[in-house]
Amino acid sequence: MIKIGIDIMGGDYAPYSTLEGVLYSLMENKDLYVVATYHKDVDLNDLMKKIFVSSPKRSKIRGFIKNNLWKSRLNFIPCSSYVSMKDKPSNFFKDKDNTLNKIFELLKMKEVDGVVYAGNTGAFLEGSVLIVGRIDNVKRPALLTILPFSNPPIFLLDSGANAECKPEYILQFAIMASTYYKIIVSKTPTVGILNIGNEEIKGNTLTKEANILLKNYIQKNENLFNYIGFVEPYDVVNSKVNIVLADGFSGNIMLKSFESLSEYMMDVLKREFSKGLINKALGLVLRSNFRRLKNFFDYSEYGGAIMLGLKGICIKTHGRANYKAIKNAINFTYKLAKNNIIERIHEQIKSGEVWIT
Amino acid sequence: MIKIGIDIMGGDYAPYSTLEGVLYSLMENKDLYVVATYHKDVDLNDLMKKIFVSSPKRSKIRGFIKNNLWKSRLNFIPCSSYVSMKDKPSNFFKDKDNTLNKIFELLKMKEVDGVVYAGNTGAFLEGSVLIVGRIDNVKRPALLTILPFSNPPIFLLDSGANAECKPEYILQFAIMASTYYKIIVSKTPTVGILNIGNEEIKGNTLTKEANILLKNYIQKNENLFNYIGFVEPYDVVNSKVNIVLADGFSGNIMLKSFESLSEYMMDVLKREFSKGLINKALGLVLRSNFRRLKNFFDYSEYGGAIMLGLKGICIKTHGRANYKAIKNAINFTYKLAKNNIIERIHEQIKSGEVWIT
Repeated sequence: MIKIGIDIMGGDYAPYSTLEGVLYSLMENKDLYVVATYHKDVDLNDLMKKIFVSSPKRSKIRGFIKNNLWKSRLNFIPCSSYVSMKDKPSNFFKDKDNTLNKIFELLKMKEVDGVVYAGNTGAFLEGSVLIVGRIDNVKRPALLTILPFSNPPIFLLDSGANAECKPEYILQFAIMASTYYKIIVSKTPTVGILNIGNEEIKGNTLTKEANILLKNYIQKNENLFNYIGFVEPYDVVNSKVNIVLADGFSGNIMLKSFESLSEYMMDVLKREFSKGLINKALGLVLRSNFRRLKNFFDYSEYGGAIMLGLKGICIKTHGRANYKAIKNAINFTYKLAKNNIIERIHEQIKSGEVWIT
Repeated sequence: MIKIGIDIMGGDYAPYSTLEGVLYSLMENKDLYVVATYHKDVDLNDLMKKIFVSSPKRSKIRGFIKNNLWKSRLNFIPCSSYVSMKDKPSNFFKDKDNTLNKIFELLKMKEVDGVVYAGNTGAFLEGSVLIVGRIDNVKRPALLTILPFSNPPIFLLDSGANAECKPEYILQFAIMASTYYKIIVSKTPTVGILNIGNEEIKGNTLTKEANILLKNYIQKNENLFNYIGFVEPYDVVNSKVNIVLADGFSGNIMLKSFESLSEYMMDVLKREFSKGLINKALGLVLRSNFRRLKNFFDYSEYGGAIMLGLKGICIKTHGRANYKAIKNAINFTYKLAKNNIIERIHEQIKSGEVWIT
């Protein structure tokens, strides 16, 4: 039995879509058990009824709800508050009896194997690190984000958890991300360090020292990943690497540059297509093409971002996650738990210790 | 008289388009004098003839060439070699008698007020700093690049010259870029530091310390620029700031992320429009819209990137620069020289000294 916790209050379409996603995932995974935290004012019966009513007639989910089939594998915990999108992480710790805090506590107590959350990213990052805690020997947990430039996608870490990094953190990021990659893609990944040039003389102290550390490590640990040296944003976009390593500052700058430029270009295109009748007509025809591009950075298929290096699986999906994205995120967490990702990361990190100290 | 040096061998369409650009700029600016370096194997008479023949009949430039009107304000210097796009900066210093080295030497000797170059960026950066030299009291020259998200565009510096920076460099970047901005835009710019969040607690040691330094500086120097604190890539794309300050590492990562993602999205769109007949037809209709977007990062209007903090004006235009972009770059350099940018930067830096040491 795999147990997963979810705060169904997190996300733009919560709690409706989050609960819907939970139900779909329960139907798909027969040995999945879900603990869902919710705000006490939410009428769960009413919510279930709504999902039932708006589901297609004769759909499997209707039977699942009507016959109370979920009851044996879904448990609800009421809380007195929840974290909104605008809440500052600091507020979140004031009232311990909130829906997010509760799932992290469950993870810490090993009552669940992983948690899924679609709400406030800042609260998620801070809460996961402070409450769940680091795996022994892991120096810094890192946020791994998925870049949808290819399939399988590119993994970027750290994408924002550690503004300042040391070379040994970068090596640990490589070890953790490769372990993760192997579980979900079943291949040995190529790994590169984000830099301002491909040549070894390029870069800052951090990239140069991390480069040497990774080269030494890989000589004795050939099987975990293939190290390809420095990569630039151009190489990332063109999928010349599977895992991109960066300090949380430059990784975050690259990620946000990609996200904001893709939004900008879609707006420019939209404007172009609102000039004159012909362009407007064309714009209508092209709507589906645009929608595909617009959702470029939603990448719901791969379950969202993961905080690597913690004593439990912590997955953060996009705020705009619909029921499908929630279902995928739960399935994804399920797969990681089934494959003992935490233990495997712990072992790899331990055996990599000699290279670091 | 303003004197400008240009290496007409640099750029994808050199020496044809570079010389053509020079001629156009000479026609526009009556007190401009140009020194052009070229490779001795180039037949200048033949080149002039080609420009003459392919220019529209009765155009001004035909008369300018035919009547040798350029002869009094354009001087050519033959060199035994030139720098190709693929040359490594280190090669460039081996043979001193090359076209790029020569214009930097002319600038150093104050034989010209500024130089324009459309070729190898690495050679340009290294050569300009090593040969032309820093303005007194300037700690680090920085590469200012133009981001075309609005008009006037956003200025980014450092976009790649200094992989590692100290807070005082960032303050000097602000002073230099603001002086430059005032000359060409005639307004007081808003200035922000690139960061991974807008709040003061966000960021790394460099951004936090630079933030304090700039806040202190601006209290006593209200007129040079308006400091608005931290900005994210999203704010840059949405033109919420005129000048973005960054260390050369993260500035370069943001610039290259923008550039590579815009190329990527254009490729995705192209692919969408090659699927099926209807889409293909649409693609043809939309060609001009796409071309506009594709050239997004060519931004030839603002003359290209500038190396700020050197004892002369060093402008690097895009390798793909056509005659118009070359003409604009020369006109731009002309305007900066007319307005004594070097002296003005020197004064501002000197008066800012107290804040730094």
